Amino acid sequence: MPVKFTLLKSSEKSFARRGIVHTPHGDIQTPTFMPVGTQATVKAMSPKELEEIGAEIILSNTYHLHLRPGEDLIAEAGGLHKFMNWNKPILTDSGGFQVFSLAHIRKISEDGVTFQSHLDGSRHFFSPEVAMDIEQKLGADIAMAFDVCSAYPCDYNTAKQNMEITHRWAERCKKHHTRKDQALFGIIQGAFDADLRIESAKVISSLDFPGTAIGGLSVGEPKPLMYEMLDKMQPYLPTEKPRYLMGVGSPDCLVEGVGYGIDMFDCVLATRVARNGTAFTRTGRLVVRNATYARDFTPIDADCDCYCCQNFTRAYVRHLLKAGEILGARLVTIHNLRFLQRLMEEIRQAIEQDAYEEYRDQFFANYDTTRNF
Amino acid sequence: MPVKFTLLKSSEKSFARRGIVHTPHGDIQTPTFMPVGTQATVKAMSPKELEEIGAEIILSNTYHLHLRPGEDLIAEAGGLHKFMNWNKPILTDSGGFQVFSLAHIRKISEDGVTFQSHLDGSRHFFSPEVAMDIEQKLGADIAMAFDVCSAYPCDYNTAKQNMEITHRWAERCKKHHTRKDQALFGIIQGAFDADLRIESAKVISSLDFPGTAIGGLSVGEPKPLMYEMLDKMQPYLPTEKPRYLMGVGSPDCLVEGVGYGIDMFDCVLATRVARNGTAFTRTGRLVVRNATYARDFTPIDADCDCYCCQNFTRAYVRHLLKAGEILGARLVTIHNLRFLQRLMEEIRQAIEQDAYEEYRDQFFANYDTTRNF
Repeated sequence: MPVKFTLLKSSEKSFARRGIVHTPHGDIQTPTFMPVGTQATVKAMSPKELEEIGAEIILSNTYHLHLRPGEDLIAEAGGLHKFMNWNKPILTDSGGFQVFSLAHIRKISEDGVTFQSHLDGSRHFFSPEVAMDIEQKLGADIAMAFDVCSAYPCDYNTAKQNMEITHRWAERCKKHHTRKDQALFGIIQGAFDADLRIESAKVISSLDFPGTAIGGLSVGEPKPLMYEMLDKMQPYLPTEKPRYLMGVGSPDCLVEGVGYGIDMFDCVLATRVARNGTAFTRTGRLVVRNATYARDFTPIDADCDCYCCQNFTRAYVRHLLKAGEILGARLVTIHNLRFLQRLMEEIRQAIEQDAYEEYRDQFFANYDTTRNF
Repeated sequence: MPVKFTLLKSSEKSFARRGIVHTPHGDIQTPTFMPVGTQATVKAMSPKELEEIGAEIILSNTYHLHLRPGEDLIAEAGGLHKFMNWNKPILTDSGGFQVFSLAHIRKISEDGVTFQSHLDGSRHFFSPEVAMDIEQKLGADIAMAFDVCSAYPCDYNTAKQNMEITHRWAERCKKHHTRKDQALFGIIQGAFDADLRIESAKVISSLDFPGTAIGGLSVGEPKPLMYEMLDKMQPYLPTEKPRYLMGVGSPDCLVEGVGYGIDMFDCVLATRVARNGTAFTRTGRLVVRNATYARDFTPIDADCDCYCCQNFTRAYVRHLLKAGEILGARLVTIHNLRFLQRLMEEIRQAIEQDAYEEYRDQFFANYDTTRNF
């Protein structure tokens, strides 16, 4: 097995877990947050900076890499790690979510999905087999099964249909996936119907993937509904395998998600809002571009140990953002990613000390959820 | 005197000089190239990276900083060094060149220049006194006098007029400049008339500034004409003070310029072409975006010690540039700036070893001037 999971500790008062995911490119301490490197680069960051902020694994996108520069070129380069010069673990998604959210004129059949590129309108076809071929060429440590995501809201029949095809495709993915140094994770679907979610959790778990992912959440639904789904699925997820909640990454959702037994998270939120000048803080957010910070010569977050907060003021970062300077986007990105890494470090420590629930309560006592994402 | 110059060595076969400029924020080994930080940031670079590529001094622009964020805000921040977190020497230009090249509807009178901001059309007035006030608030180690630049080509009368007003303004600048920890350099004008250039060199030298700058070159003229002007002025420049050729920074011009006795250079070329995907090389240039590099898994320059060339391939950098990723602009910028720093290091070493002229000849034997900038 290319990927193994060591469960170090489970909370007694919640489902929070402390573990280690072992991969061919090193260990990942869980719960963990994975910065997203959509196009083989975490936007505005260098690999060196990613190491400096403490990232242990990043995610990259099969859909984007297939369109540009293409998996064959990356395979020729020696795989994604070499291509982008990132020697720690990588997870690639399957493209299922991007086909659903980005591509044009999708046509889903039992066989696969025909879609048009959001870049140039060119026609492409992804099936479970095609997705596995691409992901195996990319060569990440963890590959994801090719799934069908439902929108929010979604009627029962569509949700059921999408879930069932996801299950059949999961089996085809498993059958077609042969790369020995790469683990394939299955994905649970079922939209916002608790029965479907439970059914999907059971089916995907029965396929014995080395890791279990939860897809199709954080697609526009209220957060309590997402937590309800997590709560319902939780009893049916294998405890001895890592659990990955896909596309979730606001600070509050990370803190809450851990309590439902999630080990891995990813999201573009941290990097995307950073480029627009919004910084994560312990109370919610700080919109650095605001005029109120024009003459504020304090750091974005005085308690933060990142390169941005240790060296630059709100006034300077605001100036950079207003002037459209690349360094502005870079500095807020560094801060936001470091913020999430520290949050996860604290969560891991809290679990080790049997204090996750107190940590969570303290976090929400400070956090202004009306200024949330 | 806030800025002193130590002349370490002069070539016997050319006018090349090896020296040190001492400033309140440290020494600068000359000949030197100064990366340009137009808006209080060298585009795409962090201060840490500037140190890593070996920059000893950077330039920033009075015109841009006056418009945004304003010199008062920067003074409040503790000056430009603190504002941008760069603790090595800084030189600020006076805005003369930007008023000439960027601003709209200029009106030059004996008193000063009225112009409209290129950003929002707002009306501004710069005089020698205003420029000095701004530069003293910014607090760079070296400030530049406020001058009037001529275009290429330029009729004799206009060139003479612009030169003469530059001389009168130089005196006014000198009179108004009182900041003790900042040196004020004078600027020679005179367009492309050798007699005017010589006259200007004499007048500016007679004003006994701690450094002598040559303005109004590299504004569109053929390079031999620029070299002719440098050659004509050379005998009239004080040897015991640093000489700064403003706005010149293509690799070949740096190598040639040193032979005419220039100690300091600056230019946006290196950073500007980098963001478009053009890398400096010993043979001229490499357009990384070109399709021919799509599957080229070698570094941009195998002999380069920069972060880009040590860690990434042409294929990867090309992918980043094609995909519009910030890291692409960052990596080529790092390479181009490091390229110029190494070039200057080699030139300095060659002068020390009495071998500058051989170095120059060797450089041009490799350099394809038909692929020049």
